[in-house]
Amino acid sequence: MFEIPTFVEILDFIGTFAFAISGIRLASAKRFDWFGAYVVGLATAIGGGTIRDLLLDVTPAWMTDPIYLICTALAMLFVIVFRQYLIRLTNTFFIFDSVGLALFTVVGATKSIELGHTFWVAIIMGSITGAAGGVIRDVFINEIPLIFRKEIYAMACVIGGICLWICTSLGFEDYLSQIICGVTVFVTRIIAVKYEITLPILKGEDEIK
Amino acid sequence: MFEIPTFVEILDFIGTFAFAISGIRLASAKRFDWFGAYVVGLATAIGGGTIRDLLLDVTPAWMTDPIYLICTALAMLFVIVFRQYLIRLTNTFFIFDSVGLALFTVVGATKSIELGHTFWVAIIMGSITGAAGGVIRDVFINEIPLIFRKEIYAMACVIGGICLWICTSLGFEDYLSQIICGVTVFVTRIIAVKYEITLPILKGEDEIK
Amino acid sequence: MFEIPTFVEILDFIGTFAFAISGIRLASAKRFDWFGAYVVGLATAIGGGTIRDLLLDVTPAWMTDPIYLICTALAMLFVIVFRQYLIRLTNTFFIFDSVGLALFTVVGATKSIELGHTFWVAIIMGSITGAAGGVIRDVFINEIPLIFRKEIYAMACVIGGICLWICTSLGFEDYLSQIICGVTVFVTRIIAVKYEITLPILKGEDEIK
Repeated sequence: MFEIPTFVEILDFIGTFAFAISGIRLASAKRFDWFGAYVVGLATAIGGGTIRDLLLDVTPAWMTDPIYLICTALAMLFVIVFRQYLIRLTNTFFIFDSVGLALFTVVGATKSIELGHTFWVAIIMGSITGAAGGVIRDVFINEIPLIFRKEIYAMACVIGGICLWICTSLGFEDYLSQIICGVTVFVTRIIAVKYEITLPILKGEDEIK
Repeated sequence: MFEIPTFVEILDFIGTFAFAISGIRLASAKRFDWFGAYVVGLATAIGGGTIRDLLLDVTPAWMTDPIYLICTALAMLFVIVFRQYLIRLTNTFFIFDSVGLALFTVVGATKSIELGHTFWVAIIMGSITGAAGGVIRDVFINEIPLIFRKEIYAMACVIGGICLWICTSLGFEDYLSQIICGVTVFVTRIIAVKYEITLPILKGEDEIK
Repeated sequence: MFEIPTFVEILDFIGTFAFAISGIRLASAKRFDWFGAYVVGLATAIGGGTIRDLLLDVTPAWMTDPIYLICTALAMLFVIVFRQYLIRLTNTFFIFDSVGLALFTVVGATKSIELGHTFWVAIIMGSITGAAGGVIRDVFINEIPLIFRKEIYAMACVIGGICLWICTSLGFEDYLSQIICGVTVFVTRIIAVKYEITLPILKGEDEIK
């Protein structure tokens, strides 16, 4: 029954875990109960992929494989048991989260291409897979979605998707294009946070001198 | 043309009515106009089933049967005409709402199983059918979803779904399993409210002594 | 490659542009970054049609034609370049927005009828196409959806949809029914704003004398 997970499955697990942790921590800060925190964690982890699969008209992955539910339950357990140490693990979670973002982007974009969609649809689907879970999380906790206001987050997915496009256009092997895409997302995200690179704010109409 | 409704159809009508009332009352408290209140009532009543049907890739029930629209219109009329008596009917609505929750859970879980999904998908679909309408309602009125913070609500759906699973595994007849599932949801909800049983709050990281 | 756009395509472009502008301006007022503003603009423009297409189980239009993405990018550019003049263009945008509302309603209702749905489904789909994008926009910027509280907006779609129904029942040609539907939505919206016609607020239970 139990098979040794592939490298991609391990990355997927790490990403899901990190995304679920981010949802559960924010839910906890808003004093959600255990059930609410689990649901927010799950929505953060699988929300992006679910919206993508609805748009692509395929069955969401979590409806055929319970790993995402189990992974969120483990994330929940982790937060409950280790909550006083979480703050010290912020950097670790950031790395995990970036791994998840990179992998989800690759998975989303690749799935779209395999279903025969154009590259700009693939770029959007990669970004939705990576970033829409966080938007759902922020709607649930009644905050303005973080990715609309701060940090290079979904933008890293877009850049990664464009790299995938270029690599494929240049005739690279699929696996190589995917690795380059994932690494680009990961590195873009890390660099953006390390050097505090942000997109410009769109100035309001009353702010013009 | 007009057929005598079955017992399940009557329960479905009661549940839809109670869910719509809950949405319309909250919209009214936020000073929505009549159109807005109707939409929030409708979304509360059919939102959960619609998300379930999108995930299961079937046509939402309200697109083939106008009963849900009519039922929400009746709920609207009821709120407008009897609004000064509504507060006294709180207990009645609570019972109606619990009937709806129980029935929607059974309908959602059963539909998933009939479409060949696994039991944990059925439990999730039962819970979505019962509780997601209330989440949409709370997003529309710009509040943190109530079910994430207070009371045993969606948790009752999960418990009912697990009962359905156990009963079916034990070889019970379908109708018997469904009745046990529905009664479990109903009783869990009633007991939780009567004895003020709640799930623990997930403590924030700064609250640890 | 490039074909001369039809009259309907030009209207569609104008409507998409106006909807995107409305999303981008509100995002700008909330100090979203460029990426966030683009996403909110895009969601405002295509959100209604996307929900409709998910419900109708067809592929969303923007997944087969990049015009909506391009149009939103142009709207973004327009806001960045001309932001100090935008306030003076409020009336122009209002007309454009009303054109979009009318056209989106006709497109949504017609698409539903062509897929064999009943007329009340078509009315709802027309209204969702016209108004749901604005609801998503308001959820993203964390405000109570405007259409639930103020102005005749989605109600104009409903009235237009009912006109379409009546015209078709009377045996009018399709194109004539569609023009009457669109003009009805447009005129209803313009008159409602000009004469400040609003739907009554649903009074709360504590406001009864």
